[in-house]
Amino acid sequence: MSPTMVEHNGLDIMCLNKYCHSSSSSSSSEQDKKIFSKLRLSLSGEYPRKNAEFLSGQYGTNLLLIGVALMLAIAHHGPSVKEEHFLSFVTCLIILQLFWMMWYILVRDRQKNTRTDKDVHATTCWIRGGLTLLALLSIIMDAFRIGYFVGYQSCVSAVLGVYPVIHATHTIAQVHFLWFHIKDVIKSFETFERFGVIHAVFTNLLLWCNGVMSEAEHFLNNHKRRLSALGYGNHTIVHSEPHCNCTTSTCSMFSSSLYFLYPFNIEYHIFVSAMLFVMWKNIGRTIDISSNRKRLATKTKSLTIGPILGLLALASTIGILVVYITHVEESLKTRQSTISMFYIYSIVMLVLMCSAGASGLLIFRADHVPLDTTKNPSRQLDTELLFGSSIGSWLMSWCSIVAVLGTNSSPPYRWTNLVYSLFIVLEKYIQNLFIIESLYRKQEDGERDDPELPAAPEIFSVTSSMAPPYNGIINRAYETPDRACVTIENEQEEIGQGYRCPRKPSEVPLPVGNKEEEPPNIKRQILKNIAVFLLMCNISLWILPAFGCRPQYDNGLEQETFGFSIWTTVLNFAIPLNLFYRMHSVASLFEVFRRV
Amino acid sequence: MSPTMVEHNGLDIMCLNKYCHSSSSSSSSEQDKKIFSKLRLSLSGEYPRKNAEFLSGQYGTNLLLIGVALMLAIAHHGPSVKEEHFLSFVTCLIILQLFWMMWYILVRDRQKNTRTDKDVHATTCWIRGGLTLLALLSIIMDAFRIGYFVGYQSCVSAVLGVYPVIHATHTIAQVHFLWFHIKDVIKSFETFERFGVIHAVFTNLLLWCNGVMSEAEHFLNNHKRRLSALGYGNHTIVHSEPHCNCTTSTCSMFSSSLYFLYPFNIEYHIFVSAMLFVMWKNIGRTIDISSNRKRLATKTKSLTIGPILGLLALASTIGILVVYITHVEESLKTRQSTISMFYIYSIVMLVLMCSAGASGLLIFRADHVPLDTTKNPSRQLDTELLFGSSIGSWLMSWCSIVAVLGTNSSPPYRWTNLVYSLFIVLEKYIQNLFIIESLYRKQEDGERDDPELPAAPEIFSVTSSMAPPYNGIINRAYETPDRACVTIENEQEEIGQGYRCPRKPSEVPLPVGNKEEEPPNIKRQILKNIAVFLLMCNISLWILPAFGCRPQYDNGLEQETFGFSIWTTVLNFAIPLNLFYRMHSVASLFEVFRRV
Repeated sequence: MSPTMVEHNGLDIMCLNKYCHSSSSSSSSEQDKKIFSKLRLSLSGEYPRKNAEFLSGQYGTNLLLIGVALMLAIAHHGPSVKEEHFLSFVTCLIILQLFWMMWYILVRDRQKNTRTDKDVHATTCWIRGGLTLLALLSIIMDAFRIGYFVGYQSCVSAVLGVYPVIHATHTIAQVHFLWFHIKDVIKSFETFERFGVIHAVFTNLLLWCNGVMSEAEHFLNNHKRRLSALGYGNHTIVHSEPHCNCTTSTCSMFSSSLYFLYPFNIEYHIFVSAMLFVMWKNIGRTIDISSNRKRLATKTKSLTIGPILGLLALASTIGILVVYITHVEESLKTRQSTISMFYIYSIVMLVLMCSAGASGLLIFRADHVPLDTTKNPSRQLDTELLFGSSIGSWLMSWCSIVAVLGTNSSPPYRWTNLVYSLFIVLEKYIQNLFIIESLYRKQEDGERDDPELPAAPEIFSVTSSMAPPYNGIINRAYETPDRACVTIENEQEEIGQGYRCPRKPSEVPLPVGNKEEEPPNIKRQILKNIAVFLLMCNISLWILPAFGCRPQYDNGLEQETFGFSIWTTVLNFAIPLNLFYRMHSVASLFEVFRRV
Repeated sequence: MSPTMVEHNGLDIMCLNKYCHSSSSSSSSEQDKKIFSKLRLSLSGEYPRKNAEFLSGQYGTNLLLIGVALMLAIAHHGPSVKEEHFLSFVTCLIILQLFWMMWYILVRDRQKNTRTDKDVHATTCWIRGGLTLLALLSIIMDAFRIGYFVGYQSCVSAVLGVYPVIHATHTIAQVHFLWFHIKDVIKSFETFERFGVIHAVFTNLLLWCNGVMSEAEHFLNNHKRRLSALGYGNHTIVHSEPHCNCTTSTCSMFSSSLYFLYPFNIEYHIFVSAMLFVMWKNIGRTIDISSNRKRLATKTKSLTIGPILGLLALASTIGILVVYITHVEESLKTRQSTISMFYIYSIVMLVLMCSAGASGLLIFRADHVPLDTTKNPSRQLDTELLFGSSIGSWLMSWCSIVAVLGTNSSPPYRWTNLVYSLFIVLEKYIQNLFIIESLYRKQEDGERDDPELPAAPEIFSVTSSMAPPYNGIINRAYETPDRACVTIENEQEEIGQGYRCPRKPSEVPLPVGNKEEEPPNIKRQILKNIAVFLLMCNISLWILPAFGCRPQYDNGLEQETFGFSIWTTVLNFAIPLNLFYRMHSVASLFEVFRRV
C-alpha cells in the first residue's frame, strides 16, 4: 500500500512511488493518465473521502438498526425471537471490534517510528479516568451476570454465559484503546479504518440501546406492579425469570444488584461511542497546528461558594432520593406528599441553577471576547449532543404542561408540576447557552503559556503562544515562510503599525497591551464558582432519575391525558436522553470550569 | 441601527459611525473600550452569532415540541385536549409568521438601493415551480376544509373554519416569499431575523407533523377496519366525525377527498421548511463569490433509454397501485396473491435501480474528478436529509427481515418479502452514494461558460469561469490584488510554469489542456440517463405508499413478531420518513441530472 492520497483543502495531489502528480499541472501525457486511472481503481486508498464517510456511516447505521429491530421483537415477548438471538448478534459485533482493535494496535506498533498526528481536543485525562471507573463498574456487572448464569445454568442458553465474558474482555481492551489511541488522527488505510472505527461506534451505541431498554423494562414492570398494588387497572407483568430453580443462593441478589449498576454501564457506552465518533471524524483530517494546543490545567484557588452550594445540593439530593424511594409505594396520601416534596425541592434547585447560568451569561455580555471559529469536531459534537439530548426532556416537560392545563383532576402537586416543568425548560435553555458560549469563547492570553504543562511532542508549542488574530497567518508562514512574510507586511501597513519579518515563527512579537485588557479576576472567579455549582447540580439531577426517582411515572397526571401506552413510550424515549444530557453537561461544565 | 458587526473568518471588526476598531490593533485607550462595551451591550446587533443561532434554534425546537405534546394528547382521544386547541395554537404561530414576513418584505423594500447578497445555491427555479404546484393543491385542500366546516357549522368549533382561511393566506404569502426572498443572505437585524426565520421553519415543520399524524390515523383506522372485517381481533376505531348531520350534500365527498390531497400538503410543508432552514443557516454568512456561480441549464439531447424505462416504470406502478387497492380487501387468497404481486414487482424495480446506481458509481470510479469541498449549507443539508430520512425505511426493512426469519407461519410471500427488504436496504445504500458523489464532484470546465445563461447581477461571472485550483487564490486577489499576485507568483514558480500578473481578474489565463481531459461524452450521456431513470423510479416508489399501497400493514408477518402496537408505532415513524426520502431524492436526482 505505498500510494497514498493526500487531501489538502480540496486540492488532491497523488503521490505514487515518488512520482508526484499535481492536479493543477497539465504537462503529463494521456497515456500516463490511463495507467493511473486503472491503478487508482484497484487501490482502496484512492476512494474519495466524502464517499468513504458515507459508505461507512451507512454501514454503521444499518448495524444499529438490525440490533434495534431485534430489540423491538424481544420487547413483544413473542415466541419467535428470544434474548439469546440478540445477544449472539451483539457478541459477534463485539468480537469483530476486538479483532479490529488488535489489528489497529499491531499496525501502530509497527509504524512506531513514523510520527502520528494527535488531536489534543479529542479527549482529556479526566474524561478517560472517569470512563475507566465506569468500565470497572461494567466489569463488576459482567461478573454478576456470570454468577447469575452459573445459578441458572441448567435451563438458560449458553449465550447468556458467553456474552458477559466477551463483554468484559471488550471493556478491558477498549479502555486500553481509549488511553493510548483515541487521539490518533488516522492517515493510512483510511477507508478500511473508517469501517473499523464506525463499527466500534455503533457497537457501543447498540450496547447503550440494550442497556436503556433493559432498564426501561425494569422500571415499567415496577410501575405496573405499583399500579396493580394500588388498584389502578390490571397490567400484565412479563417475567423474564428462567423456568428452573437457582442452584446457588445468590441469584436474586445478583439480578437485583444489576439494576443499580445499569446507569453506569449505560453512561460508559454512550461516552465511548461519542469519543470514537470524534476519532472517526478526524480520520484523514489535516490538523491545524495552531489550534492544536494543550488545554488549560485546573486551578482551584478562590473556589468557595460554588463547591459549598454544590455539595449542599448533592447531599440534599441523596436525602430526597432515599425519602422518595421509601415513601412512594405507601398509601395515596404519603405518595402525594412525597411527590410534592420532590417538586418543591426541584424547583428550588432549578431556580438556583437558572440564576447561576443567567449571571454567567450576563458576565459574558459585559466582557466581550470574540468567538473562536476554528474547526474542532470534538467541540461541535459536544454542542450538537447537548442540544439534541435536551429535546427528550423538553418534550417531557411540554407534555406535563399540556397535561396539567388539560386535566380535570386536581392533586395537590398539580401546579407545582407546572412550575417545575416550566423551570426544566428554562434551565436547559439557559445552561446550554452558557456552556456553548463558554466553549466557543477565545481563550485569553494570560493563560496560554502555562508552566504546569509539559510540552507534548505533538504540539508545536510556539504557535500556541501567538495572539489569536495572528494564528492563521503564522500558520501559512509555517508552510511557506516568504509568502506569508509579504502578507503580514501588507496587513500591518494597512493598520499602520510597525512590522518586522520573522526568521523563525518564535520570533514574531506578541502584540503588547493585551494583558491590560484582561477581565478583572473577580469575574473569572465568579464564572468558575458558577461552573462548579452547575456541575454538582447536574450530578444531582442525574442521580435522581438514574436511581429510581421518576415522578413522571408516579404522579398519574400525564397518564390521564395521554393514556398509558403513549405516555410510557414518551418516557422510554425521553428519560434515557435526559440522563445522557445530565452526564454530558457534567463533562462539558468541567471543561468550562477549566477554560474560564 | 448604524453600528454593524462584520464577522469575517473569525476576525471581528466593529465599525461604528466611521470609527473603525480592529481587534488586532492595540492602540486605542482603555476608556474607549469601556464606552464601546456599554454601547455594545445595548445593541442587539452585537450579540455573538453562535449564541444567536442557539438561542433561536432552541426557541424553534420548543415551539415544535409544544405542538407535538398537544398532538400526542389528541391522539389519545381523551376528554381534555381537543383538536381545536391544537389548531388555535397553530393558527397563532401562522399569524405570527405572516407578521414577520410582512415586516421583512417592507424592510427589504425600503433598502431597495443597497445590494443584497444572494446564495444562488439556495434553491432553483424548478424547485420553486414544483412548490407552487404543491401550494396550489394545499389551497384546494383548504377550500375542501372550509366546505366541510360549512356543512357541520352548527356543531363544530369556529376554529375549524378560521384555520383553513388563515392557512390559505399563509400559503399564498409564503409562496410569494419563496419566489422573491428565499435566496437573501440577511445581514441586518441579524438576531431578530434569526428568530423570524426559525419561527417560519418550525411552523412549517409542525404543519408537516400535523399532516403526517392525520394521515397515519386515517391509515390506521382503515387497517383496523380491514382486520375486523377479516375477523382478526376486535380493534376499536375512533371516529372523529362531528355529532350532527351535514347540512350540505358534499361533506363526505370533502372529507374523503382530503386524504388524497394530504400527501401533497405534507411534501409542501417539509420542503418549505428545508428551504427556510438553508436561509437561516445563511444569515450573516459571507458568501464566497467564486463558489456562488449559477447552476447549469438542463440539456436534454441524447436522452432515450432512461426516460423510456422510467416512463415504463411509472406506468406499471400506476397499474399495480390500482390492482392493489381494489384487491387487497377481498378474500384471503386474493389478498395474498396481491401482496405477492406487489413484492415481485418491487423486486424487479429495485434490481434495476440498484444496477443503475452501481453502474453510475463505476463510471465515477473510472473517471476521477476531485471533490468540491467549498462551504455550501444547502448541499450539506441535502446530504444530511438524504441520510437521515433513509433511517426510517431501513428500520422497517430490518424489522421485516427479523420477522420473516423468526416467524412460524409461512404465507406465500414470506421469502419474497425477505428479498424485497434486502433490496430496499441495498438500493438506498447505493442511491445515496450515487447522489452524494454526484453533488460533491467538481463541475467540469467545458460547461462553465454556458451561453444560455444570462449573467445575474449578483454573480461575479468572471470568477465563475476560472479553473478549480485557482478559485481560492483569485478570490483573495479580488480582495487585495497585489498580495494575491505575489502568492500566485510563488506557486507558479513552484510548479515551473509561466506566469503573468493580472490587472483585472478577467485577464487571468485559463489553464490550457483541460478540455482534452474531459471524459468522453458517452459517459455523461449514460449518467444522465441513469439520473432520469432513478428519478422516475423514485416518483413511482413515492406514489405507491402515498396513495395507500402499504403491504407492511397488510401482510401480517411483522405484526405477528412485533405485536400490533409496536409495529404500528414503527410504521407511523418510518413511512412518513420514507415518503419524504423519495420526494427528496427526486429533487436531488434532478440536480444530479443537471450537473453530470
